[in-house]
Amino acid sequence: MSDRADRLAESVAGRALDSLLVTSLVNVEYLTGFNGSNGACLVGPDSRTFLTDFRYAERASQLEGWEVEVVSGEWLAGLAGQLFGRVGIEDDKVTVRTARKLEEATAGRCELIDAGGLVEALRRVKGEAEVAAIAAAAELTDEIYAETFERGLTGRTEAEVAAYAVARMREQGAEPSFAPIVAAGPNGALPHAVPGPREIVRGELVVIDMGSRLDGYCSDCTRTVATGDLSDEAAEIYAVTLEANQLALAEVAAGRSASEIDEVARGVIKEAGYGEFFGHGLGHGVGMEVHEAPRLGPRSDDVLLAGDVVTVEPGIYLPGRCGVRIEDLVVVGEAAVERNLSAHPKALIHAD
Amino acid sequence: MSDRADRLAESVAGRALDSLLVTSLVNVEYLTGFNGSNGACLVGPDSRTFLTDFRYAERASQLEGWEVEVVSGEWLAGLAGQLFGRVGIEDDKVTVRTARKLEEATAGRCELIDAGGLVEALRRVKGEAEVAAIAAAAELTDEIYAETFERGLTGRTEAEVAAYAVARMREQGAEPSFAPIVAAGPNGALPHAVPGPREIVRGELVVIDMGSRLDGYCSDCTRTVATGDLSDEAAEIYAVTLEANQLALAEVAAGRSASEIDEVARGVIKEAGYGEFFGHGLGHGVGMEVHEAPRLGPRSDDVLLAGDVVTVEPGIYLPGRCGVRIEDLVVVGEAAVERNLSAHPKALIHAD
Repeated sequence: MSDRADRLAESVAGRALDSLLVTSLVNVEYLTGFNGSNGACLVGPDSRTFLTDFRYAERASQLEGWEVEVVSGEWLAGLAGQLFGRVGIEDDKVTVRTARKLEEATAGRCELIDAGGLVEALRRVKGEAEVAAIAAAAELTDEIYAETFERGLTGRTEAEVAAYAVARMREQGAEPSFAPIVAAGPNGALPHAVPGPREIVRGELVVIDMGSRLDGYCSDCTRTVATGDLSDEAAEIYAVTLEANQLALAEVAAGRSASEIDEVARGVIKEAGYGEFFGHGLGHGVGMEVHEAPRLGPRSDDVLLAGDVVTVEPGIYLPGRCGVRIEDLVVVGEAAVERNLSAHPKALIHAD
Repeated sequence: MSDRADRLAESVAGRALDSLLVTSLVNVEYLTGFNGSNGACLVGPDSRTFLTDFRYAERASQLEGWEVEVVSGEWLAGLAGQLFGRVGIEDDKVTVRTARKLEEATAGRCELIDAGGLVEALRRVKGEAEVAAIAAAAELTDEIYAETFERGLTGRTEAEVAAYAVARMREQGAEPSFAPIVAAGPNGALPHAVPGPREIVRGELVVIDMGSRLDGYCSDCTRTVATGDLSDEAAEIYAVTLEANQLALAEVAAGRSASEIDEVARGVIKEAGYGEFFGHGLGHGVGMEVHEAPRLGPRSDDVLLAGDVVTVEPGIYLPGRCGVRIEDLVVVGEAAVERNLSAHPKALIHAD
């Protein structure tokens, strides 16, 4: 992991900072492997300092490549004591109150500069081991999709289907990367529906959005299936959403702007007359967190990089009637999708 | 729940604010019952506005007593559009970047004032239903302690004991309120040890710290048990910690300062010569979150209130040798502990 800190030190120097104070715990874990509940890193050209408190002193002493400072007494005062010169802070993570306390405690001795996102920028581009971990989480999720459809949906409640998926993940040593969504019939029109006591009946669409977290990395996938024959409207929005998903995937490549890719999917849906029923962005990065950089949406300034792992998840939601979302998780390559980690079929399947 | 918003409106008026922008999701849930992933409240003498995005429009329309605004387009711009006059923000939750964006988007039209902690202050004092929910979570945890000790510890790994406890919680419809700690022998000296492959052997201390989350409320309890005869040192630190726990509990009452109660426990441990081996605060509030206000520790300015639900958890940690922590969860009454929610015995028990 020491190359991660080295790459971060380069970004820090590139911003003309003496150091970056990393307080986001997931960023701290990315840099050091430490996954306790209190820790921070100070990284600069010449510094690799890890700070924690008494409770983690023994664990911290096992971190390689880091000078460990155990803060006794007030945590922020302890952090402040380490700061000199132009110090970047993660302004997108640090609270107003913490920043003010740090300002007070370092008064005059250092300048705090907004510099959030530097670690997240490194985290975007996944290494081989990271892609393998995400792929393993996605494969497990695919297996659970297959089992879920094989055992059948009709007659079960949404909550029961969700609980089954979670139980299967846990049996395999994984955790859900977020609470699964199982939304049948009109509930499918709620993009973030909570699985409830509604029994799934024949002839409706069921949206299932779930992912696993395995060995610290997340997956994310959505499939929508039919329980028997559908209304023309339901069949049509499925076909439109699938086309939006496929055409957007065909555009994914390093160097493409995230808003452009979003526009491809959105264009298909608008063209079919459902533009107002696709109210969320096209996708997001996935890694240690299930939502991370980059963001694919109409207002995103991000440009895709080779090694990004992102979702492509257009949807159409018809209030009171039904909804469709189809979501793949893909590794971005230089000229195209390098690998689609979501292997479960997307052609409209019937799962009674 | 509308009385919660009314009480908040009083605090808001008391701070001479026109409104408070509540963005902390747990605070939003406390006020409204909404538990989705994006929502905010704007509460003032005359306003009860709930803001969310398209995904939750249907769910939000079911909230009683709230005027719902569905933000389309950029979220912060949507929030900013609702802000006028002197607006409090949760400065202990809002990031530096978000505050700056809100400042920019509201330029001149309103003044943002640091006002974090107002909802947390309401959350401290638990109502009857809240205490009942915490008590139920604590009772479940007690049952799992009993089962864990009955099935025996010796020969099992720490990880296995922790997994058993989590599985039992889930079978009962609960979740762990944090990842359980099971720390045997020298691992007990790490106050936040991660349960590992170490097999528990005869004649050592095992620290088990766990809690359940049931119906939205958490419990938290630590017991330390002996697997057979102990060294004199281990037996002594158990006795000292138990005395610290009991004497501190005897001081708990509304109006007492949290640092005073901490000092009672700390004094017992110092007196016995182990002062340097108790490196954390005495306790914390527990409710919707497993760590919330008030804080019991040497540097806390909090004063206990009737209706606070707090832990009292002194510990002694001897690096490389062993550790003890004994933690009860209690409801603070006017003149004493009103109710100790941790019913599992504290006299040193032997659990082979």
